[in-house]
Amino acid sequence: MSVCIDINGVCIGGGAFQLIAGPCSVESKAQIISIAQSVQRSGAALLRGGAFKPRTSPYDFQGLRAEGIELLLEAKKITNMPIVTEILSERHLPLFENVDVIQVGARNMQNFELLTILGKTDKTILLKRGLANTLSELLSSAEYILAGGNSNIILCERGIRTFETHMRNTLDLSAVPALKEMTDFPVIVDPSHALGIARLVAPMAMAAAAAGADGIMIEVHNDPENALCDGAQSLTPEAFHDLAKKVRKVRQAL
Amino acid sequence: MSVCIDINGVCIGGGAFQLIAGPCSVESKAQIISIAQSVQRSGAALLRGGAFKPRTSPYDFQGLRAEGIELLLEAKKITNMPIVTEILSERHLPLFENVDVIQVGARNMQNFELLTILGKTDKTILLKRGLANTLSELLSSAEYILAGGNSNIILCERGIRTFETHMRNTLDLSAVPALKEMTDFPVIVDPSHALGIARLVAPMAMAAAAAGADGIMIEVHNDPENALCDGAQSLTPEAFHDLAKKVRKVRQAL
Amino acid sequence: MSVCIDINGVCIGGGAFQLIAGPCSVESKAQIISIAQSVQRSGAALLRGGAFKPRTSPYDFQGLRAEGIELLLEAKKITNMPIVTEILSERHLPLFENVDVIQVGARNMQNFELLTILGKTDKTILLKRGLANTLSELLSSAEYILAGGNSNIILCERGIRTFETHMRNTLDLSAVPALKEMTDFPVIVDPSHALGIARLVAPMAMAAAAAGADGIMIEVHNDPENALCDGAQSLTPEAFHDLAKKVRKVRQAL
Amino acid sequence: MSVCIDINGVCIGGGAFQLIAGPCSVESKAQIISIAQSVQRSGAALLRGGAFKPRTSPYDFQGLRAEGIELLLEAKKITNMPIVTEILSERHLPLFENVDVIQVGARNMQNFELLTILGKTDKTILLKRGLANTLSELLSSAEYILAGGNSNIILCERGIRTFETHMRNTLDLSAVPALKEMTDFPVIVDPSHALGIARLVAPMAMAAAAAGADGIMIEVHNDPENALCDGAQSLTPEAFHDLAKKVRKVRQAL
Repeated sequence: MSVCIDINGVCIGGGAFQLIAGPCSVESKAQIISIAQSVQRSGAALLRGGAFKPRTSPYDFQGLRAEGIELLLEAKKITNMPIVTEILSERHLPLFENVDVIQVGARNMQNFELLTILGKTDKTILLKRGLANTLSELLSSAEYILAGGNSNIILCERGIRTFETHMRNTLDLSAVPALKEMTDFPVIVDPSHALGIARLVAPMAMAAAAAGADGIMIEVHNDPENALCDGAQSLTPEAFHDLAKKVRKVRQAL
Repeated sequence: MSVCIDINGVCIGGGAFQLIAGPCSVESKAQIISIAQSVQRSGAALLRGGAFKPRTSPYDFQGLRAEGIELLLEAKKITNMPIVTEILSERHLPLFENVDVIQVGARNMQNFELLTILGKTDKTILLKRGLANTLSELLSSAEYILAGGNSNIILCERGIRTFETHMRNTLDLSAVPALKEMTDFPVIVDPSHALGIARLVAPMAMAAAAAGADGIMIEVHNDPENALCDGAQSLTPEAFHDLAKKVRKVRQAL
Repeated sequence: MSVCIDINGVCIGGGAFQLIAGPCSVESKAQIISIAQSVQRSGAALLRGGAFKPRTSPYDFQGLRAEGIELLLEAKKITNMPIVTEILSERHLPLFENVDVIQVGARNMQNFELLTILGKTDKTILLKRGLANTLSELLSSAEYILAGGNSNIILCERGIRTFETHMRNTLDLSAVPALKEMTDFPVIVDPSHALGIARLVAPMAMAAAAAGADGIMIEVHNDPENALCDGAQSLTPEAFHDLAKKVRKVRQAL
Repeated sequence: MSVCIDINGVCIGGGAFQLIAGPCSVESKAQIISIAQSVQRSGAALLRGGAFKPRTSPYDFQGLRAEGIELLLEAKKITNMPIVTEILSERHLPLFENVDVIQVGARNMQNFELLTILGKTDKTILLKRGLANTLSELLSSAEYILAGGNSNIILCERGIRTFETHMRNTLDLSAVPALKEMTDFPVIVDPSHALGIARLVAPMAMAAAAAGADGIMIEVHNDPENALCDGAQSLTPEAFHDLAKKVRKVRQAL
């Protein structure tokens, strides 16, 4: 069984199963608080939201950045949910002082200088598998964090790049049982980014739960059609509520 | 919901969930009958077994071929289970007269001449996705069978080829909900061939059930260590019995 | 150095460098003879042309089939060029009696029954690498032909399937020097099918020559815009003439 | 034709063809000066050498880092060759003040914060394609540099990740003519990292020249067997001398 990574009293791993939910990007105070409250009511234990957004093009919305983190902290204050948000540069680390879980995205999985610096903090690091990285390389990247003394590491499968173009990426769920043989770090799954299609998120979230994941991370937006990023893969709060119920049933069956 | 393909009274699709199980290769009369009886006791509705084996090297065991089909038919007579076995050439078609489900393997998914001929039979065809084929191409191959007038088609996800070498292939479970949006043909999953590692089969079988598959196909061998092919991915009858129970629980939770 | 496979007096391998050219599909007597004569004037030693066409969809043009082979044989009579054309089923083998080189396409690289039967003929077999097959698997497939006693085998790199969508496939030119370390069979390259874009064919043909290929196979059509298949990747006879000159210069430089 | 990026009087692009050569890692003053002098005698215009090394494992040799850059600068002083070396973090930028070309490696191709900062310098940036990145994404990453006002950008194809395991990666040489249709930035090729096997470097370097690359970058080591990294893909100075002659012949033929 994976170890429990304690995040303000919430265990990831250790036999628990957690839902992490929230919007691709923090867009406004009203938006993040509203989404936080609704996913919390549906059972999400952690709030995710993008402040610094790694976008393929420099001309796409880059996130609210420092302001986005402030808004996440306000949502945390109101809901008491620990927050997860992505870091893009060690230069921004001071802004993450009150962030509970620092996400290293797929594109930075082998940004070894960043990993080394995060290894010297006591933050929980959510390390996503790169789009073309093997499980063995994912563990080597985790080792960069561990080598600095930080063992608060959560691994995340979020899809790999293959020839199939129907979905954005190919979700490799076999990473879950395989990683569980290789390591004690908790392993969660992000079906939203892997698939890029909201309709496919719920069945793959249930599959992730059945495969033994320690949690799932789901993009939820109050108004997906007008989301500033990744609207096509975001669930409405209602759809997330429904998914959360189904996933719990799958977990109880195990 | 997918249509029911009726196989001697067993529905694949139509809301049912079926287990198909049996050895990679038929090796002897005692072996196939013993495995058939044990997987039947565990709830498998169909018996699978390889007679004609497509092996990468000509120097590997090529299956018992015609004799293998005869042994499968004996197991069918004793257990009353419909049988599934792979065809490698239209030339062998007469041998498949009493076979219930003819499998077209991943390597022949775009053997269009074979598909065309199978389209003129009234056999149920189990069409496996090729290792480098998109879902759209899988449906185009099904269309070759359909164009001849045969709509008894079951699609099967069995892993695609990616850069990851930890498992034999990468099981693309998102194919299940995606295909269900695209077609009414039932969709089953073969985790044994996808993963190539027996320990990973059970969690991925449960994940396939949770993702909405109409059935799973599992390799079971009474003596995996001495199997003439694919022993590393074969479950013992006991492990299959355990898997079958778990998968049923997942299905009940949905 | 690779061995010379003698095809009616034309060596493939053995230090020679050959151009194989012709249309994707044989469309009419006038078309195939006109293209044959023009590519011959530009230096092509062999004529290629599709009679049996493996098309993803059953509703696409499937080739002139038996009639296409007859038209190729007429072009052979007039030009004296050996001809190369693809086989899709062992059932068609009698039609190939006067065909000089039988092509096994990428989709049939692991159609082991077909390979076994071709191994019992004395025809030269042009074996294309499958879209998701390793070099080691390509050699294992060649071994199926060799095991029957036929060592007249030419290997062909024609692109593999990757995540890149700009071209149809990714031409893996490193297959050329790698295969030359592993085997004595000649190795040719088909940049037309790999790239699917006529403008990229000439530079990659030159690159193939520089990498040490024993020949290249190029699609040439007298009227690419109205070709019944693969017009987008076909060169005009004039463009082929220009390419042939450039490739010869690269070869002389080696 | 691509634009000329002027590097201390050496053009990359603009019709020129340049050889960039040097060791994977700078190991000592004697090593880097000796290699620099020998590759210069063979015709290399730029010296490459790793000071900051991005290694999959934290326990592998990480490069001499700041000291490595000093040793490169000494080699530059002696040979007058412009130097190319990789940056891993914006924090190290002050150390690159006298570096002529800053390399952004494949793993950092989508480290957008780093690209943004490099866009505000006047350094020439050698941007390598990521292992799972499309050409379109490579150009979007270049756009991050360009958006800051820096148009001194050289693109580099260095192999992509595929299912083939015979070589380290699959060198996608079609990226060269394809990128040349899409952009005016010069495009070079790094066959050493793509292949990982020294014997395959020379044929692929010639192929890159024939495909129209503006230059090639080759790893050269005076003692490959004892190199601190990537010895298996390094050429000896003698082998590089031979390669340089052959590549020049290919270029003259074009």
